[in-house]
Amino acid sequence: MSALLDRFLDDAGLDRVTAAARRVMTRCEELARISGAESGIERVYLSPEHARANRLVAEWMREAGMTTWQDAAGNQVGRLEARSVTADPHVDRDAPALLLGSHLDTVPDAGRYDGIVGVLMAIETVRLLRVRAGDSWISPFAFAIEVIAFSDEEGTRFGTALLGSAAVAGTWDPEWWTLTDAGGTTLRQAFLEFGLDPGRVGEAGRRPEELVGYLEAHIEQGPELDQRGEALAVVSSIASARRFQFVMEGEARHAGGTPYASRHDALLGASEAALAVERICMAEHHVVGTVGRFEAFPGAVNVIPGEVRFSLDLRGEFDERRDEVWNRIAEDLGAIAWRRGLRWQAREVHRAAAVTCAPLLQDVVREGILTTLPNGADEPAVIFSRAGHDGMAMAAITGVGMLFLRNAHGISHHPDEHVEGADVARGIRALAEAVLQLGSESRTTLERIRR
Amino acid sequence: MSALLDRFLDDAGLDRVTAAARRVMTRCEELARISGAESGIERVYLSPEHARANRLVAEWMREAGMTTWQDAAGNQVGRLEARSVTADPHVDRDAPALLLGSHLDTVPDAGRYDGIVGVLMAIETVRLLRVRAGDSWISPFAFAIEVIAFSDEEGTRFGTALLGSAAVAGTWDPEWWTLTDAGGTTLRQAFLEFGLDPGRVGEAGRRPEELVGYLEAHIEQGPELDQRGEALAVVSSIASARRFQFVMEGEARHAGGTPYASRHDALLGASEAALAVERICMAEHHVVGTVGRFEAFPGAVNVIPGEVRFSLDLRGEFDERRDEVWNRIAEDLGAIAWRRGLRWQAREVHRAAAVTCAPLLQDVVREGILTTLPNGADEPAVIFSRAGHDGMAMAAITGVGMLFLRNAHGISHHPDEHVEGADVARGIRALAEAVLQLGSESRTTLERIRR
Repeated sequence: MSALLDRFLDDAGLDRVTAAARRVMTRCEELARISGAESGIERVYLSPEHARANRLVAEWMREAGMTTWQDAAGNQVGRLEARSVTADPHVDRDAPALLLGSHLDTVPDAGRYDGIVGVLMAIETVRLLRVRAGDSWISPFAFAIEVIAFSDEEGTRFGTALLGSAAVAGTWDPEWWTLTDAGGTTLRQAFLEFGLDPGRVGEAGRRPEELVGYLEAHIEQGPELDQRGEALAVVSSIASARRFQFVMEGEARHAGGTPYASRHDALLGASEAALAVERICMAEHHVVGTVGRFEAFPGAVNVIPGEVRFSLDLRGEFDERRDEVWNRIAEDLGAIAWRRGLRWQAREVHRAAAVTCAPLLQDVVREGILTTLPNGADEPAVIFSRAGHDGMAMAAITGVGMLFLRNAHGISHHPDEHVEGADVARGIRALAEAVLQLGSESRTTLERIRR
Repeated sequence: MSALLDRFLDDAGLDRVTAAARRVMTRCEELARISGAESGIERVYLSPEHARANRLVAEWMREAGMTTWQDAAGNQVGRLEARSVTADPHVDRDAPALLLGSHLDTVPDAGRYDGIVGVLMAIETVRLLRVRAGDSWISPFAFAIEVIAFSDEEGTRFGTALLGSAAVAGTWDPEWWTLTDAGGTTLRQAFLEFGLDPGRVGEAGRRPEELVGYLEAHIEQGPELDQRGEALAVVSSIASARRFQFVMEGEARHAGGTPYASRHDALLGASEAALAVERICMAEHHVVGTVGRFEAFPGAVNVIPGEVRFSLDLRGEFDERRDEVWNRIAEDLGAIAWRRGLRWQAREVHRAAAVTCAPLLQDVVREGILTTLPNGADEPAVIFSRAGHDGMAMAAITGVGMLFLRNAHGISHHPDEHVEGADVARGIRALAEAVLQLGSESRTTLERIRR
């Protein structure tokens, strides 16, 4: 384990990493208490809980030496300025920044770690690496380090996803303003109620030249590392994804009085559709489809459902395969609706191309993980992420790298989601090492990340 | 059309029936404005709208000459006392009553006529038949006439059905007190909030000897009369019914990270279950099954549904067939759950045996309808009711008869539900004639109804 980190930290290095991991675990519990649901964890975009979580995380960022702000899309950001070799007092406020981060929003009835653990590990990495410059702390490198806590990765409230990172990437779509949540509140209205100005969302956008790259630690959300008995993995790429909202319409009729021949039951049509998604995707190893939302109206015991609204989340390793599968699903839905005398419509609410992680960022993450393995150990695991991440949006403006943490039994998006403190310690060590490796690269090499 | 009604009414008889039908149509509109939903009609048991509808209908009952009360289960009742040939002032307050009625509660997003039209036609029948006795109005018969507006036929709020008529029939089940509505309010709590005393619900019960029979006019809730071009039908029997609430449980997992082999998707299991219900019932002509409620949890775009709650409404002409079908459905559900690694449970929330309408009541309804047909016309239509009605509960204590009204296109439990004013006039005429026919029967014959 002769690593840059060991040389960088003082003799108490390992103790400091352990303390950092303990702090992360405690803070995950603390954040879990900020929930909009009566029981379980739920923090959705632009909610009062979003604001509370941002305030708490901003405090932790400042405690780690960063200056903080909430951006125009509700993302919480902290910055540790770059070191200047020429200026006095050794601060270069114009240097590009390496972004470390993840997200603070959750699905309904969520676990404690998805997203959150990556934000907290990023803060601890800053705390490990920061150096003194007069009264304040700065980055030991020629680049600044920013920690960014994205505000809407899951898309729980408005059905789309990556709103926070899309704002930062400058790919905000004005059509999103009319998206509504379950209560009928539009995204525009939610911005205003949160205290944000919809007209200024563009100000959250970052230019490629301001950035060195984006590096994120995240739990795996699948069982692969757990099954292999490994703690950490390099992420090679992030799945391509599309999300749709469907309306299947038939006729709400009396359940007793209406014979089968006169029925146009939207629930049965939508049920067939959900099963068709499963059948089509299972026949195609590289694509996975999920119907997660499914609501039948009017929803009375003795009324044939006249309308069903449901969602489809489609992910694939390759964009083309994903789109082929979508075409087959759309064909099947058409046939089901035609046979049952139903109308259907689909609205695409999210689309992200597959993202290959930047080779240099994959390399430093690999180096970082290697320092956590016993001497002579094998190469670290390299995993393709079926789950979507903020990096998918960030890839539009900068190079993206990711580090995965083992997730016990692969349970994610669920209260039983679990990460071991020892793995978090390994992860912080790997992440800090990766950042140090980047710090040792020349500016020319770093600029190559974003190409 | 030489009918008892023509002899009973003065020369303005036909005009009075037309005016009565117009009043019914206007009042259906008036009641439609009492709704708990922001748009559309929804009046559920023990809601503020239930109380408002009762008050309005009570006014109309009093205007028709009845004394009124709300019973211990929230049913609204009006009574026109019997005529005594011996007493002075010709009132016999101890005579048994012929009950005319239907229900005032609705499904969500309901039509204007289901239930309501029967209550209003009953009031108009009283108004046509009442005779003077000093300052007040009485029945022209040796039996009293009561109009009863049942409070919970649909079962919209608590998932079970016929709570109002079950209370009157004395078949209230104490287990119902713990039923909860969508907001978690128990039936017991709802009673208290409505101002009713759960401990006194038994007082709503009637004894067989207090009653002559129960006669109800109702829209068909199916397309048969419309397709045959007939306005009215005698109902021969009411379907047997069972209702179940299901919970299908799997595991809520991340939609991206969880491969198909590790999934236990409750939505796919429940979708298969809904399709199995359709397949099994369609193979059996005498049974119809409907999954009307269907809710997936947690209901997020990117989470595999871990739980689905859904309902099953099963109706059949014969109890045995219905039960055979249920056994096959339960078997199929077990197989689906086993194959997908899901848990499931079913709770029966309602069960009613098929009810054959009392022969004498069928006869007088037939006579009534005949007076509305051109001379020499065929026999009236005789229909078996697939839909459930309060008569199913009332059959426990008295003979039951029903008159069906044509329902345009068979659309029911829907805002487009429609009944023609001319059919309502025919229906009032038939109902009044049927009551007059009963009035001409001997007490011994009438007592035979309830056997």
